[in-house]
Amino acid sequence: MKYNFPVTKTTSPKEKPNPDTLKFGKTFTDHMFIMEWDKENGWNNGRIIPYGPISLSPAASVLHYSQQMFEGMKAYKHSDGRVVLFRPDMNAKRTNRTNERMCIPQMDEELFVECVKALVEVEKDWIPTKPGTSLYIRPFIIADDAFLGVHPAEHFMFMIILSPVGAYYALTGDGLPATSIYVEDEYIRAAPGGTGFAKVGGNYAGSLKAQEKATQKGCSQVLWLDGVERKYVEEIGTSNAFFMIDGEIITAPLHGTILPGITRDSVIALLEKWGYTVKQERLAIEDVLKAGQEGRLQEVWATGTAAVISPVGKLCYKEESLTISGGKTGPLAQKLYDTLYGIQTGNVVDDMGWTVEV
Amino acid sequence: MKYNFPVTKTTSPKEKPNPDTLKFGKTFTDHMFIMEWDKENGWNNGRIIPYGPISLSPAASVLHYSQQMFEGMKAYKHSDGRVVLFRPDMNAKRTNRTNERMCIPQMDEELFVECVKALVEVEKDWIPTKPGTSLYIRPFIIADDAFLGVHPAEHFMFMIILSPVGAYYALTGDGLPATSIYVEDEYIRAAPGGTGFAKVGGNYAGSLKAQEKATQKGCSQVLWLDGVERKYVEEIGTSNAFFMIDGEIITAPLHGTILPGITRDSVIALLEKWGYTVKQERLAIEDVLKAGQEGRLQEVWATGTAAVISPVGKLCYKEESLTISGGKTGPLAQKLYDTLYGIQTGNVVDDMGWTVEV
Repeated sequence: MKYNFPVTKTTSPKEKPNPDTLKFGKTFTDHMFIMEWDKENGWNNGRIIPYGPISLSPAASVLHYSQQMFEGMKAYKHSDGRVVLFRPDMNAKRTNRTNERMCIPQMDEELFVECVKALVEVEKDWIPTKPGTSLYIRPFIIADDAFLGVHPAEHFMFMIILSPVGAYYALTGDGLPATSIYVEDEYIRAAPGGTGFAKVGGNYAGSLKAQEKATQKGCSQVLWLDGVERKYVEEIGTSNAFFMIDGEIITAPLHGTILPGITRDSVIALLEKWGYTVKQERLAIEDVLKAGQEGRLQEVWATGTAAVISPVGKLCYKEESLTISGGKTGPLAQKLYDTLYGIQTGNVVDDMGWTVEV
Repeated sequence: MKYNFPVTKTTSPKEKPNPDTLKFGKTFTDHMFIMEWDKENGWNNGRIIPYGPISLSPAASVLHYSQQMFEGMKAYKHSDGRVVLFRPDMNAKRTNRTNERMCIPQMDEELFVECVKALVEVEKDWIPTKPGTSLYIRPFIIADDAFLGVHPAEHFMFMIILSPVGAYYALTGDGLPATSIYVEDEYIRAAPGGTGFAKVGGNYAGSLKAQEKATQKGCSQVLWLDGVERKYVEEIGTSNAFFMIDGEIITAPLHGTILPGITRDSVIALLEKWGYTVKQERLAIEDVLKAGQEGRLQEVWATGTAAVISPVGKLCYKEESLTISGGKTGPLAQKLYDTLYGIQTGNVVDDMGWTVEV
């Protein structure tokens, strides 16, 4: 490694959690990574220290104006003992696109990846290996100036915390469970000129209300429509959405309101390799429903780091509801999951060059 | 008072700042207010403690998903020694409207006001009295669950910090300085179905990039256009915007994308009392420019708690620029400032019943 970050080891290591009962994002490892930014020194003082509370001024700008960003990625331990990351360069690139939009300083992409590798190396014994589990990696940046004016901060903290996680949705003996999705036509997630393409807290805070509504309607996630016409499908919850109609696959284009998902990009690459036509274009919800009624909507799934692939078995829109793939996981969604998760865990040969050894 | 919050006094009080060199939001007083929320106890454990850093889990949801909100208000000390707040019930009501949108628990409005009063009472010696100065009050709520899933938190902290502040824009001998405003047509602040009407960090974080662009263009703030058609005027920076055309005053309606400003509401009430017609309706930027070119645009100003009234002397839109009121503060903006700031500071009789003694 090019960088050599000092490591302060914990004196009270925690017990590793039971892999059978792992939840998502509730348990954290023994150490975390911290690095700081100021104008004079740029990103500096990267270090690994025991996991624990951080001290912030009550006037810190992240607490008031939400100037922050985050990333999400995972580490896996293969049966030969190798520890791998999945396309970490993509997280580094997205970090800088997010930072540019949020007036957060750019970070050298190699530095970003090295920080992640350094912490995962220290915590490699925390990576669970039971099927469906992994070590979730959460890099994030917060603005911590103690100043109440609305303007870009002059001091930032970059941190990484790690959480051993179970499957995002419980796996069943039959494979991936299919989800019910509520088509949201009141609240929006993003609009052109906003922050939809950036991985920032504001997008998520604004989505909680719609998520609550979906839960009340008996659905597990929301399908977002575009913020201007409320007509075109955008994302599903915090994931990208894919629709298979008449043998072709359609997903929303990256025109500013869609998070450029790394699983999204990987799914497109795999589908094209397998000979499918993938269209990145706008798709009206009415056309989805019509295709469903006419038996032409074959599969719908969401893609994201947390769940990898989430098949959709049912769409609820206004008073209507539409069953997809007989309410079960479709064969293509299952194949995508098996291939991607297989590459990540070392059970499928990575002929895409996506895994990076720590 | 109905509530009796325990007070832990600081053992190392700070020196009060020089009122001649006060900046906005950089100096904080000796104490702060903290109260917590959980499902079992609701809002509880309200207390006043020495001002200082807070300890947060690095997984706290406010740092990742920006589930938070804030308010802004001011306290003034009158020449007779009375300490007053300006319409604090309006901040309490807005807090609950924001909280509802952000899945943050509701707070009894009387409780909100009592918390503010209790802290201001303890810190009343910090209220500066030089013209243009005041004690800025920042109540805010953060979600501090240590959990990385995207869903409403189960624990919140309500805090209040206080900052003695100078004039937001430097006052000159000629009265209020007029600002130059850049009409933003690329980035947006809000769109229907989003969080524009709520006082949340995400709205402000997303605005930094446009503010940076305005500064580069030599302007002090941005005039936001609506997020759907990029056609209608919405807010100016973090303030509400007023346009006087042909003797009538127009401001954007509260249809979900506009922050319901307390100064906005007060300005409308004063103008109507003075016999002006105030229209809360959509106004196209093209109609503003046309009125300017035809000499019918008499005044433009922004309203907000920080600056009270900010007159606009110049609008820059694409390659055009338009001088308003000869680039100076118009008479109505000046009268509104003198009246509002006069009521707040006790130099004008408050026949609106807006001031509330602490």
